[in-house]
Amino acid sequence: MAAVALVQGASRGLGFEFCRYLLLNKSPTAVIATCRNPDAAQHLAALSAQHADRLTVLKLDVCREDDIKRAAESVSDAFGKVDLIINSSAMLHPSGKGETSLREVSAQGVISTLTTNTVGPLVMAKYFAPLLQKGTGAFGQQSPKKEKQHSGIIVNMTARVGSIGDNALGGWYSYRMSKAALNMATRNLSIELGRGRSKIVCVSLHPGTVNTDLSRAYHRNVPKDKLFSTEYSVQCLMNIIDTLNIDKTGKAYAWDSTEIPW
Amino acid sequence: MAAVALVQGASRGLGFEFCRYLLLNKSPTAVIATCRNPDAAQHLAALSAQHADRLTVLKLDVCREDDIKRAAESVSDAFGKVDLIINSSAMLHPSGKGETSLREVSAQGVISTLTTNTVGPLVMAKYFAPLLQKGTGAFGQQSPKKEKQHSGIIVNMTARVGSIGDNALGGWYSYRMSKAALNMATRNLSIELGRGRSKIVCVSLHPGTVNTDLSRAYHRNVPKDKLFSTEYSVQCLMNIIDTLNIDKTGKAYAWDSTEIPW
Repeated sequence: MAAVALVQGASRGLGFEFCRYLLLNKSPTAVIATCRNPDAAQHLAALSAQHADRLTVLKLDVCREDDIKRAAESVSDAFGKVDLIINSSAMLHPSGKGETSLREVSAQGVISTLTTNTVGPLVMAKYFAPLLQKGTGAFGQQSPKKEKQHSGIIVNMTARVGSIGDNALGGWYSYRMSKAALNMATRNLSIELGRGRSKIVCVSLHPGTVNTDLSRAYHRNVPKDKLFSTEYSVQCLMNIIDTLNIDKTGKAYAWDSTEIPW
Repeated sequence: MAAVALVQGASRGLGFEFCRYLLLNKSPTAVIATCRNPDAAQHLAALSAQHADRLTVLKLDVCREDDIKRAAESVSDAFGKVDLIINSSAMLHPSGKGETSLREVSAQGVISTLTTNTVGPLVMAKYFAPLLQKGTGAFGQQSPKKEKQHSGIIVNMTARVGSIGDNALGGWYSYRMSKAALNMATRNLSIELGRGRSKIVCVSLHPGTVNTDLSRAYHRNVPKDKLFSTEYSVQCLMNIIDTLNIDKTGKAYAWDSTEIPW
């Protein structure tokens, strides 16, 4: 049975590029691309026209538990398993800009950011864990020891600014808090889903500063060689995913494979 | 001018005990006790009858930004400054029990827990920071060096289970994630509010496992000598607060003064 990969938040940015990469470089993997509004996702539509047999586009708003449940049922019916889930959708803040000071913090802004960046990926894990437990270990580096083999992989896209220990600059309250909480979710998931016979590897990955809409307002401050294309970032992250196993679960890694402190 | 301390979430548990301690042991400190429903806060009413001249009870639902803003205006009018804020209100989960597995996770449960435990204390800092900057450094251990002196202190009550690095057991998704994100808030606040001439010391404190309603469902699993009374825990935490200065800002400490990893 061919590998099945699901990318949540796939209409643009890194999520879209993960889909493109998987279609081009991981044949015959079946790719499920989810996004809030498939009708408006032009890039996905074009990709779908090229890979109609391998790409499935599903409507899924990560802020709606019902949507996630329904998508999992649909994937279960169509594929019966998932080998890899990448949670990619995220926002800096509903305004599009991270808070530069406490005065810019609002309860509603923090809650919206947490709902998309943190709660969404956790609820994805809730409904897709049973499908990942039916995965066939098609991604990562399978251990030769049977008791260490994994069935599936969950990748939560984090960010270095979500590291509490690494935080020397402050600001971006909502985004930083959402990624710190997401890292806790990754850690918790790695423990619960690392038990038993069908193990799921769970990691947080930091893509570097990437040329996407999320960080566009800040690109002029980034040295050119530190502003990655989505292609470069996804290539680096897929190299990490290709080497994942249960010994590497429950941690946060940057694009260059270095571990990020909590 | 007498010291001013504000305890948010003061109707019971640790918050109430902090008020009692401050009234008994830190005379003539003026104590402001906030809670969602003062009319139902019987213990606070009794305390208020004993210390009418020093205890002010204010209605404040930490989930309502308007309430926080209004309370800050009221404190500003009555006192003009605050020296110490303790954010104490918290829940394990709206159900009263932490999730033992992913199946028990719900988006709404996580969001409610994050709103009370994480967003509330951050929004408190937003509206009370200007009053803490007018503080006179009445709490903590003031540095002899003028450039290192602090005006106020923010204490966010965290928990060891909110440490990502220390997490070996999993479970309690909502609570763990809320406290990890709160630790990020503490760290971020320590950076922004540690700049300039009026410095605010910001720390997360872990009270140990305390005999309160929050953890009551789990007390039978705690060895007797590890289940602290609120009196003992608050005594330990006040001993830490008494030694705080700007060099200790931005960290998480347990009741025994040891630092907790992120």
